[in-house]
Amino acid sequence: MEKTKFNQNQSVFKVGELPDKMYLLVKGSVGIFLPTNETNKPNFIIQENELFGEMGVIENELRMATARCLVESEIISITKDEFDKRVNNSDVFVKGCLKALSYRLRSVEKKM
Amino acid sequence: MEKTKFNQNQSVFKVGELPDKMYLLVKGSVGIFLPTNETNKPNFIIQENELFGEMGVIENELRMATARCLVESEIISITKDEFDKRVNNSDVFVKGCLKALSYRLRSVEKKM
Repeated sequence: MEKTKFNQNQSVFKVGELPDKMYLLVKGSVGIFLPTNETNKPNFIIQENELFGEMGVIENELRMATARCLVESEIISITKDEFDKRVNNSDVFVKGCLKALSYRLRSVEKKM
Repeated sequence: MEKTKFNQNQSVFKVGELPDKMYLLVKGSVGIFLPTNETNKPNFIIQENELFGEMGVIENELRMATARCLVESEIISITKDEFDKRVNNSDVFVKGCLKALSYRLRSVEKKM
């Protein structure tokens, strides 16, 4: 686990990158910009205490958007390995549901 | 949380019922029978230490199959409220991922 300060306009990750971490916004504001967005207005705004970048890590897919700080921000990041450890230390029902949901999502997405 | 003994051939839940609980098989063996299945051979078999009946609770949909014990079994059950408490007491990243996965699954299923 690592806590990092980001400047305004600094990117946390960019579209197309390999996802190695997921993030928790502790302080500030982060904009999510889809690749088709050429404006300065983000498609989504991450609020304080919100998680972001988690789907790339869970589904092991390249980043589908760019995350850029809208103001100076403080962000905690954890790696996939650290996340897996936290899952393994979780309550048996919580862990089981996380696995069931991932599995279900993958089966549903395969059918699309 | 409740631990219950089930006899061989006893149902844990039946297709069409409202899902009020999720289950962890502690000892024994449970068969999942889809409604189209008129044989005594289950479509899926739940092994010891495996969770079942969780998707109905998470997605709040009627049971899509019947769960019946193939041998005498011991099963722990928890209610939706108990599950929600366990989720709320979980690690912030685990909790966030569970929410993100549920949300993602629902959006994907809406598009199908």
